[in-house]
Amino acid sequence: MRDGGDIEALIQMMARLPGLGPRSARRAVLHMIRKRGLLLTPLAELMTRVARDARECLNCGNIGTQDICDICQDNRRNNGLLCVVEDVSDLWAMERSGVFKGRYHVLGGTLSALDQVGPEELRIPKLSARVDSEEITEVILALNATIDGQTTAHYIADQLEGRVTLTSLAQGVPIGGELDYLDEGTITAAMNARKPV
Amino acid sequence: MRDGGDIEALIQMMARLPGLGPRSARRAVLHMIRKRGLLLTPLAELMTRVARDARECLNCGNIGTQDICDICQDNRRNNGLLCVVEDVSDLWAMERSGVFKGRYHVLGGTLSALDQVGPEELRIPKLSARVDSEEITEVILALNATIDGQTTAHYIADQLEGRVTLTSLAQGVPIGGELDYLDEGTITAAMNARKPV
Ligand SMILES: [Zn+2]
Ligand SMILES: [Zn+2]
Repeated sequence: MRDGGDIEALIQMMARLPGLGPRSARRAVLHMIRKRGLLLTPLAELMTRVARDARECLNCGNIGTQDICDICQDNRRNNGLLCVVEDVSDLWAMERSGVFKGRYHVLGGTLSALDQVGPEELRIPKLSARVDSEEITEVILALNATIDGQTTAHYIADQLEGRVTLTSLAQGVPIGGELDYLDEGTITAAMNARKPV
Repeated sequence: MRDGGDIEALIQMMARLPGLGPRSARRAVLHMIRKRGLLLTPLAELMTRVARDARECLNCGNIGTQDICDICQDNRRNNGLLCVVEDVSDLWAMERSGVFKGRYHVLGGTLSALDQVGPEELRIPKLSARVDSEEITEVILALNATIDGQTTAHYIADQLEGRVTLTSLAQGVPIGGELDYLDEGTITAAMNARKPV
């Protein structure tokens, strides 16, 4: 093996991460090598464990290290409120705002005729089953304010109509805005001002 | 352990890398988990190996995975030309330009009265020893065009004067510019137009 082949391979693989390019990957790798004990070794160990343990929660689709995530397992959370989001990153953004104390359902994307994503490709059948089997009184549709997000929200609203109270995030979510880009205050405002669909 | 504790710890450690913040670290970690086989597992393995193997070349200060780096070991390179750079990232930038076929000497920084960095803190004594013991005919001072870089270049020029031909990178290096930020063409032009100190 060429000397430094692993280092070059590490740079090239780091450069494939979102937000990093070749130049920042080189800087990151040099930095990690210099901070080996503080950064590179712990990162390698964490990545090894996360690669082994990370999984989607069988109930809600959140990503954690157990079959049922800690939000689904947390008895202190409100069983009656279910917040539907497109992606795990949206769930994390909601959690950072700290405003929501119910549970989540992660769809795993949006309906898209173009990309041939139908309800079965998302976690929509499971959502319907949860509404039937859990003590849910309100489903909050916290989908992104994009065309696909709103199409998906309307589809779900049609499916669940008459079976549960449906609300959506209201003021604060900018047109075309994605939850994951919003600050905590905006998410809090949108959650507090949620309104019936 | 809290479910997802490793994932949260991984995000926080990734956020400490240069060029990444909390938000891009979250996106990178989600991306890695989704591309586990292609990205997370190989990254974990590469980091484990690099954490174990990475070291500074005993001769030139380049970072590789052997005690003597592949550039120092490469018989096809010109023994007579020695290019002195501040940092490994500068050496890598020179190598990407492909213009230089000699060998390198990485100082590991610049002289700085303010930060109490003297010649002994850098690889300057080793540089002097190499000029004495190797068949070096020309030392190219490829230090950054910063005040500290140029101070260091002058110090080295004083030390080596009369013992070897000294040149420095010429046209193409912008005032205040750092090698690591330059494109390959600029580095090539500066190398080809190098002039005596
Ligand atoms: Zn869950
Ligand atoms: Zn070397």
